[in-house]
Amino acid sequence: MKRFYLGIDLGGSEVKLAVVDEKGAIIDKNSFSNNYLSTPKDVAAKITNYAKKLKGFGRVSATGIGVAGDIDQKTGVVRFSPNMKNWKNIHLGAMLKNKLPSPIVIDNDANAAALGAFWLDAKGAAKNLICITLGTGIGGGLIFGGKLYTGSTGSAGEIGHIPIDPYGAKCNCGNHGCIERYLGANYLSESARNDPKIQKSAIINKLVKGDLSAITPKILSTAALKGDKNALRVWKCYGEKLGIILSAVINLLNPDMIVLAGGVSKAGPLIMGPLVKTINDRAFKTAARKCKVIISHYTKRLGVVGSALLTKN
Amino acid sequence: MKRFYLGIDLGGSEVKLAVVDEKGAIIDKNSFSNNYLSTPKDVAAKITNYAKKLKGFGRVSATGIGVAGDIDQKTGVVRFSPNMKNWKNIHLGAMLKNKLPSPIVIDNDANAAALGAFWLDAKGAAKNLICITLGTGIGGGLIFGGKLYTGSTGSAGEIGHIPIDPYGAKCNCGNHGCIERYLGANYLSESARNDPKIQKSAIINKLVKGDLSAITPKILSTAALKGDKNALRVWKCYGEKLGIILSAVINLLNPDMIVLAGGVSKAGPLIMGPLVKTINDRAFKTAARKCKVIISHYTKRLGVVGSALLTKN
Repeated sequence: MKRFYLGIDLGGSEVKLAVVDEKGAIIDKNSFSNNYLSTPKDVAAKITNYAKKLKGFGRVSATGIGVAGDIDQKTGVVRFSPNMKNWKNIHLGAMLKNKLPSPIVIDNDANAAALGAFWLDAKGAAKNLICITLGTGIGGGLIFGGKLYTGSTGSAGEIGHIPIDPYGAKCNCGNHGCIERYLGANYLSESARNDPKIQKSAIINKLVKGDLSAITPKILSTAALKGDKNALRVWKCYGEKLGIILSAVINLLNPDMIVLAGGVSKAGPLIMGPLVKTINDRAFKTAARKCKVIISHYTKRLGVVGSALLTKN
Repeated sequence: MKRFYLGIDLGGSEVKLAVVDEKGAIIDKNSFSNNYLSTPKDVAAKITNYAKKLKGFGRVSATGIGVAGDIDQKTGVVRFSPNMKNWKNIHLGAMLKNKLPSPIVIDNDANAAALGAFWLDAKGAAKNLICITLGTGIGGGLIFGGKLYTGSTGSAGEIGHIPIDPYGAKCNCGNHGCIERYLGANYLSESARNDPKIQKSAIINKLVKGDLSAITPKILSTAALKGDKNALRVWKCYGEKLGIILSAVINLLNPDMIVLAGGVSKAGPLIMGPLVKTINDRAFKTAARKCKVIISHYTKRLGVVGSALLTKN
């Protein structure tokens, strides 16, 4: 009989749950809303309730939780989550013990997403895979030899903090010119709002009803798809910058596959052309040819499926 | 009884051989000269002769060869070696079969050096280790979970081709602004020769007897140790640039240890200060604290010892 796994994707605005089989197929799923002020106790109680409603829960043999934040994988402690104010050094593993099927493993959402991409997008076949989540931050998760690689203190995968301009703008992390400082959703929006040509774009002004502060990556995608030249330029530049960093990552790690996920990856068709061209121009030829770069077909479920399979890793 | 391994470090100017035990201690070693015009047949014959002279050869249970070049690890073929003209698609593994103890494994010299650093500098204890060879090129080898990681086509570890200035000078690899383009020995020397302040330095002029074309990293080290301010500045800048790239590598791979090896690492004491300061300023704090950065204590034997232990990997 197939083994079943419980996965929980604990995000700042939504908590998703699913029972999945050992290849990541979803048996049943549900979800509830979360917010910045949620308390760990309330969320843990809701997780238990929602999990028990899932079909197949009785057959689950392990639980995995992916949390947007800084996680101590060894102890199951959420050290810090930027999107949930009350989650500081919360021993989530201990709170759920005896309530959900053991073992319970906790990791950060980017690592969980990488495992999800490995099982769903690559069908378990790309032994060396890098998953990059493009959103407010630029996250990364690494699969080497078919296993999640988290490094010596659990923080490996920070692709967003490779500098593209080491003497450039200061990033929140303290470093200068990190790729996240240019491509993170907020920075991208801010940069577009301050761009005189974007400010004058009729298409964009119509989309935001004259309120330039409403410019987001989504608005920029919509405008580009409507043919706005300046919005198209924003995404071309995004693809080129990401391509420069991915070329470095391909030279360093020589993966089979790079999977782009996260909200901004919806702009994928706009960035893939310049992205792939940049990789072909810049990365080592054999390594570049070997590395398939795709936009995840499963962005919305990567986190919950990957979380479920954390214990399988 | 301890297992013995035969290691061969096949370089463009010298071939080193050694019998080592399973922890990398050298039982016996020897070497012979090589040059750009050597033929694979002659070198293979010499390797066999020299290997048989080594104490402990009769007890050797496997052979590993590290070659400066592009290697197909699976087939044992030296595709190309920039330092040996006649080595193009040479099936070295087949040439040595039945002449040296099997299995025979071939890999590139940077990967072999990383294994050497893992066993000698880290005593097998730093599970995630990155070895960087600073010489004509900037090479890299990756150890994850105590095993050599070579990627999907065997070319992982190309730390030298991470760009520090993506819109900067063109590198031999076709990319722009790779760190090797600035810190590789030839580029470093050329840049120093063209520096008006270096050109006027009394200390340097004395060292090269007025012939500025004789400026090498070694001359720059000697001048710096004699207090030459401009040579000191060259090494400070070297340490900072390398530190920027190592910060990115620490954020991405979160290793226990980074080992610097190769000829230019002799300038280590001149670069370590600015290097470590840059990492402390730029890399993620927990990851940076965990990562020990050292200059190898075994630079000259990393290649031969690591080669010997390739089959143990």
